[in-house]
Amino acid sequence: MTNLPGIVITGASGRMGQMLINTVLASDKCKLVGAVERVGHDWIGQDVGLAMGGASNGITVTDDALEAFSKAQAVIDFTAPAATVAFSALAAQAGCVHVIGTTGMSDEDITKLGDAANHCTIVRAGNMSLGVNLLTKLTKMVAQALDADFDVEVVESHHNRKVDAPSGTALMLGEAAAEGRGVKLSEVTDSGRDGITGARKRGDIGFSAIRGGDVVGEHDVMFLGDGERIVLRHVASDRSLFAKGAVKAALWGQTQKPGEYDMMDVLGL
Amino acid sequence: MTNLPGIVITGASGRMGQMLINTVLASDKCKLVGAVERVGHDWIGQDVGLAMGGASNGITVTDDALEAFSKAQAVIDFTAPAATVAFSALAAQAGCVHVIGTTGMSDEDITKLGDAANHCTIVRAGNMSLGVNLLTKLTKMVAQALDADFDVEVVESHHNRKVDAPSGTALMLGEAAAEGRGVKLSEVTDSGRDGITGARKRGDIGFSAIRGGDVVGEHDVMFLGDGERIVLRHVASDRSLFAKGAVKAALWGQTQKPGEYDMMDVLGL
Amino acid sequence: MTNLPGIVITGASGRMGQMLINTVLASDKCKLVGAVERVGHDWIGQDVGLAMGGASNGITVTDDALEAFSKAQAVIDFTAPAATVAFSALAAQAGCVHVIGTTGMSDEDITKLGDAANHCTIVRAGNMSLGVNLLTKLTKMVAQALDADFDVEVVESHHNRKVDAPSGTALMLGEAAAEGRGVKLSEVTDSGRDGITGARKRGDIGFSAIRGGDVVGEHDVMFLGDGERIVLRHVASDRSLFAKGAVKAALWGQTQKPGEYDMMDVLGL
Amino acid sequence: MTNLPGIVITGASGRMGQMLINTVLASDKCKLVGAVERVGHDWIGQDVGLAMGGASNGITVTDDALEAFSKAQAVIDFTAPAATVAFSALAAQAGCVHVIGTTGMSDEDITKLGDAANHCTIVRAGNMSLGVNLLTKLTKMVAQALDADFDVEVVESHHNRKVDAPSGTALMLGEAAAEGRGVKLSEVTDSGRDGITGARKRGDIGFSAIRGGDVVGEHDVMFLGDGERIVLRHVASDRSLFAKGAVKAALWGQTQKPGEYDMMDVLGL
Repeated sequence: MTNLPGIVITGASGRMGQMLINTVLASDKCKLVGAVERVGHDWIGQDVGLAMGGASNGITVTDDALEAFSKAQAVIDFTAPAATVAFSALAAQAGCVHVIGTTGMSDEDITKLGDAANHCTIVRAGNMSLGVNLLTKLTKMVAQALDADFDVEVVESHHNRKVDAPSGTALMLGEAAAEGRGVKLSEVTDSGRDGITGARKRGDIGFSAIRGGDVVGEHDVMFLGDGERIVLRHVASDRSLFAKGAVKAALWGQTQKPGEYDMMDVLGL
Repeated sequence: MTNLPGIVITGASGRMGQMLINTVLASDKCKLVGAVERVGHDWIGQDVGLAMGGASNGITVTDDALEAFSKAQAVIDFTAPAATVAFSALAAQAGCVHVIGTTGMSDEDITKLGDAANHCTIVRAGNMSLGVNLLTKLTKMVAQALDADFDVEVVESHHNRKVDAPSGTALMLGEAAAEGRGVKLSEVTDSGRDGITGARKRGDIGFSAIRGGDVVGEHDVMFLGDGERIVLRHVASDRSLFAKGAVKAALWGQTQKPGEYDMMDVLGL
Repeated sequence: MTNLPGIVITGASGRMGQMLINTVLASDKCKLVGAVERVGHDWIGQDVGLAMGGASNGITVTDDALEAFSKAQAVIDFTAPAATVAFSALAAQAGCVHVIGTTGMSDEDITKLGDAANHCTIVRAGNMSLGVNLLTKLTKMVAQALDADFDVEVVESHHNRKVDAPSGTALMLGEAAAEGRGVKLSEVTDSGRDGITGARKRGDIGFSAIRGGDVVGEHDVMFLGDGERIVLRHVASDRSLFAKGAVKAALWGQTQKPGEYDMMDVLGL
Repeated sequence: MTNLPGIVITGASGRMGQMLINTVLASDKCKLVGAVERVGHDWIGQDVGLAMGGASNGITVTDDALEAFSKAQAVIDFTAPAATVAFSALAAQAGCVHVIGTTGMSDEDITKLGDAANHCTIVRAGNMSLGVNLLTKLTKMVAQALDADFDVEVVESHHNRKVDAPSGTALMLGEAAAEGRGVKLSEVTDSGRDGITGARKRGDIGFSAIRGGDVVGEHDVMFLGDGERIVLRHVASDRSLFAKGAVKAALWGQTQKPGEYDMMDVLGL
């Protein structure tokens, strides 16, 4: 047990943070060695198991990320862009793998991650599930095989608390379709149809966003032709899927050279 | 055969006009007695069967709507708002049932139809299919049974030549959901989500429009709650469905008093 | 808090039992007062919270059902037919509401429940979700509105550990369709199509069972006609849905006279 | 026009035969030069356009297949196994491409086709659509990428006149999944689930057949895992799709050496 890779979870009190902690605790391939929250958070100094309403697990929540990282082989981080950039420098300093599920990062943020990646292994992905990454690959292939006689539409559904549309994963899929066709997504995006739109423009890639209930995440990539259609569909039904993907990335990263990777690399797709 | 109700089709050369003509010709409950096109149209004076690229059927395309209507028991009309308003006065004058599938009519247009309806039987519907009208009724019921813990989303798919979004049928379904909840649709409509939208507002009714290929028309009304969802779905796979509904309405109208009706009346829903 | 209705959970160590315990603990409308397991079970004598791997909650698992029931206002029971029949007599003796989610009960078992129901309030349902019960009602209505020109197919998906097909809920939906048409389900069932089946018989009600992954439960009732179809769909995405429905039934039962009820009664459908 | 490849259609009076005739007539890349029916059929000696209820097209229906074939560059044949075997020998004799959409052929029939293929170009496919053939390729790939943690289910829907289940296309997709996994389909097929089936066997490939209305053909290949699923879906909405695929195969075959081909070859997949 003591030789298993030790993992630190940042944003420990959040919904995704707690999911990650439970996933690490349930794994027999790694162990939890730290839980980080921001300065001033209620949970600082508490046993993270008790704070989560369960049994004690001996890990005390801390706001000293560097100290926590220095005892770990990997940090898993689904927080916010500014925090993630800061954590990345600390992970590089501590020499541990940095798995990033944070979304909404700017180009500037990503450049800073690049600096950290000179010294540490970073795995960053908009979606950590095996299925979505496989779907992305299929989308590119099908877009390549079919010409613009087939209209591409990406339709996604998420819970009613999601604040942006289309989802990052939908955009990743649209990007794959655009690549398959050899066009730039930004030049063919047709999102948020409403009112008198005129006929659909040949070659456009459409996006629709459905919001409601507690839907974890569903994505359809449709190729609609005359008399037939192909739909590539992914349904995530359990948020722990993303946590499991992140843990897989953390373990995979143990044997990699410093640099930036994504889930395609982890999954060998 | 001579005693069967005689039907006139307006807009005879259009895709829907030709579909209506074929449907009337194939029916053993009515007969084709006229085909109307606008002044100056190529088809005027031609046998409509030959003009459609098939066998002759003895009906000559005319631009004299009144004369055509005066030999008929019903006129079926999927044209444009201005033409439909004009046809309605002529149908009243000729004493024949006016079945209207024209969409996009303004409030002013509809007032004018009301005048004609004092003297003739008008059946007007955004969608002539049995299934969609039944779905509309179910939507109202379910919206009544479930509270706003269930988010309502209306998702529709149509072919790539459709110029407006959401579809008239989607709006009709949204209207039914709003009625079931006792709210005004205009105050809860959330259509064309795109960008940073914020979390979904409780009680909103969302609309998404998918466009591509030759999809005839598909509508989903989703009720998305915590841990479960209900979806009411209609798929139209054959445009002749709407033509058959229109013929059914024309026959039903034969025994009705003057006034305005819709497909719910025809179907007895 | 002390005045809240007290609930006992039977089969406490099972997946559904633990789900029920967590649901009762999380509710502010009732409290957990007992946890029952069979004689000889490992958990007997342990704190049920600790046994479940969480925090202590002061309730000790017991094999003395009658004593547990006598301190409670309701017992929620998703176990097996023989156990449920025995519990029903004890619940009647203890004067508490018996909520039954157990499936696979024989006619003989159900007769015995009827005896208990002379003295206590029983709520029994194959599926405790609001959505499925609403869908059942809609299915009957639509089957009534459409004639046999529309073919009825019930398609269900469940996880790969399910041992029977079609699901009890699918049969309940088929039953509702048959009732709507005024036929006996047993005379029109067409389940497990395979090989040279011949053309579909008019009026049949078809069943298909999809098995895989960890699908909680999905049911489609399809009405397939010429040129159109209606699909009524329910998706359960969280097993706690059924636990929440059971708790709702337990609370509802507090104000009912002795007798047998189902979820339609609870939900006022 | 006279230099376009000439096509003969067998089984001219059938639904598929008429669809093929209309598709050839509508194409500007080939011309109709013959229409064959069996000895004694009503249509023999009639103009095929008139017999179909449309305009005359100058092609007389014949029962002399060899004479018809000898004037043609290709014959398109969606008939029955025995007829197809006989036509194949005649097509070889006449030196024209034989496109075969006939299903239900025995191994013995297929051996006989092989003899003919020494002398002529045969294109034979269970499904002539671009989409289905692409889906078949994707299915194999995904089955290869995912292990048996993902359960494979093939679900198909067809009209109520279909006499066999699962469809030939479903079996083709199941075959592709089995190949991807390196197993024999016959050893892992689980079709027609009904009754007490026991838990799903790991590695099985399941099949479900939905029958109703006038559904042209819909196929889903599902990969169901823990917390996520991938679905590859094809919807054929217009039977002319298969006719267009057959014409494409006939044209493609003009430049091929004698031998047996399938749609994967035609489409270059």
